[in-house]
Amino acid sequence: MPQNRQILLDNRPEGEAVASNFKLVSTDTPALKDGEVLVRHHYLSLDPYMRGRMNDSKSYAASQPLGEVMIGGTVGEVVESKNPKFAVGDQVVGMGGWQEYSVVDGNAPGMLRKVDTTHVPLSHYLGAVGMPGVTAWYGLVKIIAPKEGNTLVVSAATGAVGSAFAALAKARGCRVVGIAGGPEKCKYAVDELHFDACIDYRQHPDVKTMSKALKDACPNGIDGYFENVGGYILDSVLLRTNAFARIALCGMIAGYDGAPLPLQNPALILVNRLMIQGFIVSEHMEVWPEALKELGTLVGTGKLKPRETVAQGIESAPEAFLGLLKGKNFGKQLVKLS
Amino acid sequence: MPQNRQILLDNRPEGEAVASNFKLVSTDTPALKDGEVLVRHHYLSLDPYMRGRMNDSKSYAASQPLGEVMIGGTVGEVVESKNPKFAVGDQVVGMGGWQEYSVVDGNAPGMLRKVDTTHVPLSHYLGAVGMPGVTAWYGLVKIIAPKEGNTLVVSAATGAVGSAFAALAKARGCRVVGIAGGPEKCKYAVDELHFDACIDYRQHPDVKTMSKALKDACPNGIDGYFENVGGYILDSVLLRTNAFARIALCGMIAGYDGAPLPLQNPALILVNRLMIQGFIVSEHMEVWPEALKELGTLVGTGKLKPRETVAQGIESAPEAFLGLLKGKNFGKQLVKLS
Repeated sequence: MPQNRQILLDNRPEGEAVASNFKLVSTDTPALKDGEVLVRHHYLSLDPYMRGRMNDSKSYAASQPLGEVMIGGTVGEVVESKNPKFAVGDQVVGMGGWQEYSVVDGNAPGMLRKVDTTHVPLSHYLGAVGMPGVTAWYGLVKIIAPKEGNTLVVSAATGAVGSAFAALAKARGCRVVGIAGGPEKCKYAVDELHFDACIDYRQHPDVKTMSKALKDACPNGIDGYFENVGGYILDSVLLRTNAFARIALCGMIAGYDGAPLPLQNPALILVNRLMIQGFIVSEHMEVWPEALKELGTLVGTGKLKPRETVAQGIESAPEAFLGLLKGKNFGKQLVKLS
Repeated sequence: MPQNRQILLDNRPEGEAVASNFKLVSTDTPALKDGEVLVRHHYLSLDPYMRGRMNDSKSYAASQPLGEVMIGGTVGEVVESKNPKFAVGDQVVGMGGWQEYSVVDGNAPGMLRKVDTTHVPLSHYLGAVGMPGVTAWYGLVKIIAPKEGNTLVVSAATGAVGSAFAALAKARGCRVVGIAGGPEKCKYAVDELHFDACIDYRQHPDVKTMSKALKDACPNGIDGYFENVGGYILDSVLLRTNAFARIALCGMIAGYDGAPLPLQNPALILVNRLMIQGFIVSEHMEVWPEALKELGTLVGTGKLKPRETVAQGIESAPEAFLGLLKGKNFGKQLVKLS
């Protein structure tokens, strides 16, 4: 029975999340019951939504309970099986949490999915060909619904969602402008992710300079925006929207800590007849097959080359997660667990 | 050639609009050219959108030019015609502006429409069976798209838009809660307009008390909101929205004067997966026939009994308009011109 190291949520953040909110423990993996599968995790996915789960307040999902393993997406390999649908050696994606092993009911629908790593590396099933990729797909296809030639903007441009968004939007003939932190990320966005332009928010730290930069990068205005951040960047984008622009709201990372960040000029929603829609992708499972097919093809054919930042070992997860919230990662943030 | 008294926009407001922004002048009505019609206005409609037109800043519509007759909807009677489509005595609705007469090109599409006053009084073509009614219809049917049993909220509840909204929403089996200023308007909303409840915003002047009142009036939460006002009322409604609630944004009257009013907690759009859409009804002419048919039937059958506040004479228009912006009117604000 292998030892399983786990990260629990020990206490809730007061304001900014800190490492001491988490606790590392070690337990035995339990013996399997009929129908269950033991998965050895290869990678854990770290994602901004986890910050919301750490709070006790009402959110779109249940709070992460204290003293339990942190929620999280994982990819790995079946190492023991009492379920005829899964064999030892199968590569699988699931929601195993911040731990090295998980025991999964192989009969529960949607809990564990076998994946093919012939053309797509295993880790990408946590990024471009997983939840973040489908998030980009849903916001682009179902909310922004762009026309060829439209100008689209995405914040957190070099992250897992942003990079998938760019590839999907370029495939639809759009001009895509990213917003990212630092010259290295901006260069990467243009050179490797095929963004038409990328704005460094560190060089444009307020509405005045950011809206000017957006004006320069979007000479025909903004027709669609995929929001991962919130705060002054959203305010700046609204100032540059064209009539009937559409905004997919998927993250408000800037506001997770402390007080809510206001939207400074909501009258622009009326003035420019905007549509703003918030969503979480797990409520739209019906689009996943179509989205994953397109995303797998983009990765398999080299049109989407997602970058990853990989922390080593379960014990590194808290610091890697706090870094993600501050934008220290470059591309999809993972933790390698084996 | 009759004298035509007109109200011009003389200068733009600095902050709050004031009576001295307007100027009353008197001119001769010009001789008609071929195809033209002279209309004697019976009623002028006063509407909140006019405040936006008085500014020089970018808005969804062109600014009202200085020194020209203020824009506005009118109903009246043809008193002279050089157009075979219009006869003297025809009752017509159009955009004649703040003046006693207008000369209209009877061949220009959509400029002048003949109306039937057998079942619907002429003035109602400026309210329930006109632009405000269609505004309510579009927001309800095309944006909120409610299901039977949904709880809907509308601000400025006893105004022309709000009262039509209530009748349309009740016809679809919804619970409808209004927000209005003062006990008299709230009583009227419930007794005459068939609102299920009406909240007096004067008794609930901040987010804390208003959101509490909304909780009491909407025990099952809010599924749809028709926004005529903006400011803290919108903030309060967002706090009570159910998942997937839909918000039609048609007015931000509270923010027309002075600085923009922030939306305090836009993260709720994500948390509750809301959809917010701004619109102006003149961009959706394709729905007008269907909407006007339903609204005409509601008025004709007595299911919608719109109330009017009528000022007398063109010279009273500026003060009546300023009163409208402060909520002093009760129901549709009109100016009687003949």
